[in-house]
Amino acid sequence: MRDVYHEELDSIGTTLIEMTGLVATALNQATAALLGADLQLAEKVISADDQVDALQRDLDARALDLLARQQPVAGDLRTIITSLRMSADLERMGDLARHVAKIARLRYPEQAIPADLHESIAEMARIGEELARKVGEIIDGRDVETARTLEEEDDAVDRLHRALFGALLGADYPVETAIDVTLIGRYYERFADHAVSVARRLIFLVTGEN
Amino acid sequence: MRDVYHEELDSIGTTLIEMTGLVATALNQATAALLGADLQLAEKVISADDQVDALQRDLDARALDLLARQQPVAGDLRTIITSLRMSADLERMGDLARHVAKIARLRYPEQAIPADLHESIAEMARIGEELARKVGEIIDGRDVETARTLEEEDDAVDRLHRALFGALLGADYPVETAIDVTLIGRYYERFADHAVSVARRLIFLVTGEN
Repeated sequence: MRDVYHEELDSIGTTLIEMTGLVATALNQATAALLGADLQLAEKVISADDQVDALQRDLDARALDLLARQQPVAGDLRTIITSLRMSADLERMGDLARHVAKIARLRYPEQAIPADLHESIAEMARIGEELARKVGEIIDGRDVETARTLEEEDDAVDRLHRALFGALLGADYPVETAIDVTLIGRYYERFADHAVSVARRLIFLVTGEN
Repeated sequence: MRDVYHEELDSIGTTLIEMTGLVATALNQATAALLGADLQLAEKVISADDQVDALQRDLDARALDLLARQQPVAGDLRTIITSLRMSADLERMGDLARHVAKIARLRYPEQAIPADLHESIAEMARIGEELARKVGEIIDGRDVETARTLEEEDDAVDRLHRALFGALLGADYPVETAIDVTLIGRYYERFADHAVSVARRLIFLVTGEN
């Protein structure tokens, strides 16, 4: 019985890692759809988010079931509660990638983002995707050391985000562009924040530090 | 022993209700600071958010302690897990009110919001505050019927949010204004979303419906 229990506990970790891969890919593809005005890819990202939502629902149901049946204590209890919180972060990251794709779809066949801001957006996306993939490895390896380095990458996203506002203010874009860039900048920033939040939860899980 | 346990469980509900009051007041005051360019009030809202964060940390610690010590099943387990999720929503609502206050502070002594958009912002804030207060009553009374009505008010916030973009596009505001209004509109919209999320969790808690 205990073996099945620990297999179930492990499988929750496996689902979390699967979710990190899906949201990393979603952000990558949403950005390609945005910067390439690719309607088909935007639609694909929007539909694919259902899978992330389904994984979260399934993970949460399994976690609650384990809590009810096994009444775990100490480390296992902390693992399950932390997993529920991580799955909420990851689900939200999926939503944010979908939001990016929705702006690409809304503006199609136009480009939402002016050409001279593509590089900044692509860089925010690159770091965001990397953060999501690293979070998967961090969960897999219970890797506190790498988890601690994620704050720095998040700072880089924040700097890019602020620079984006600077670029908007220094140019003469239409108001529609200012709105789109402001929202999209926010989505990437929040995506990175949630990745760091997952890393912090892993640190808490392993070390008890808050 | 069971009596102390149920008192502890009740006290978690009391803390949640206290948090709804604090975030409702925070949104009200942040909006007054924003529309009145009131730096002192903005600072007050920004500092006061620490109290919401502290309540969340305290609630979460008590909830985890109950889980570990009492190993609750069925209804009590669901209550505790739902409380953890509600406290996360409420903590985020506090952050969003603080974000509004930070824009007021950033632009002081200027007004972040042009006069002709004040009414829309005030109305989003009014509904947001009302949602937060209702959520407190809903938790207190386990009031599923009222909880179901919150979606409609959230729809009203979404309509106001869309109208705000329309107003931005139809006028010739500076880019800085477009950025501020876009972010602020998003903060109110997310505040209302989280209130509805708490209401949905209450419905789930009482009825088991998802």
